[in-house]
Amino acid sequence: MTLIIYDITNDRLRTRLADYLKSRGLKRIQKSAFIGPLTDSERKEIAAKIYKMIKGQKANVQIFPLTWASYKHRLILGIPTVEEEEESPIL
Amino acid sequence: MTLIIYDITNDRLRTRLADYLKSRGLKRIQKSAFIGPLTDSERKEIAAKIYKMIKGQKANVQIFPLTWASYKHRLILGIPTVEEEEESPIL
Repeated sequence: MTLIIYDITNDRLRTRLADYLKSRGLKRIQKSAFIGPLTDSERKEIAAKIYKMIKGQKANVQIFPLTWASYKHRLILGIPTVEEEEESPIL
Repeated sequence: MTLIIYDITNDRLRTRLADYLKSRGLKRIQKSAFIGPLTDSERKEIAAKIYKMIKGQKANVQIFPLTWASYKHRLILGIPTVEEEEESPIL
């Protein structure tokens, strides 16, 4: 699994990144966090694309490769803050 | 390592949570993301505290236990979006 979190000031760029991550099959878990299963090469490809997308912008994106155990043992507190349609199972 | 990400609408609550995570020795890596070494019992204690803090609020907090490898292999793209003083080494 791969977790991608971002901190982007510009609304348009933020939306563009979110749309891109959705298009790559990642699932939104928070307003600025996506998760999904990616191969190493997919992760590198996505990182390269994001690098180009945010270049020169006030933006920070962090990409964490996660073990399955890390994913399964995550604790979720509070209520969902993203759309229900995006809460479909990953596998 | 433990990664904590949050999505909180209320400014005051968001600041309160950030201050709490700082007080527990976690390092801010984005506006809504903190990371740091925690034992299992510390992680549970912090989760219980956050649970109480955000109860009934429009808030979502996710806590990921990370392997050291996940932490070391994270990719960081773009520029830092949090204060330099918080960029001190964790260990």
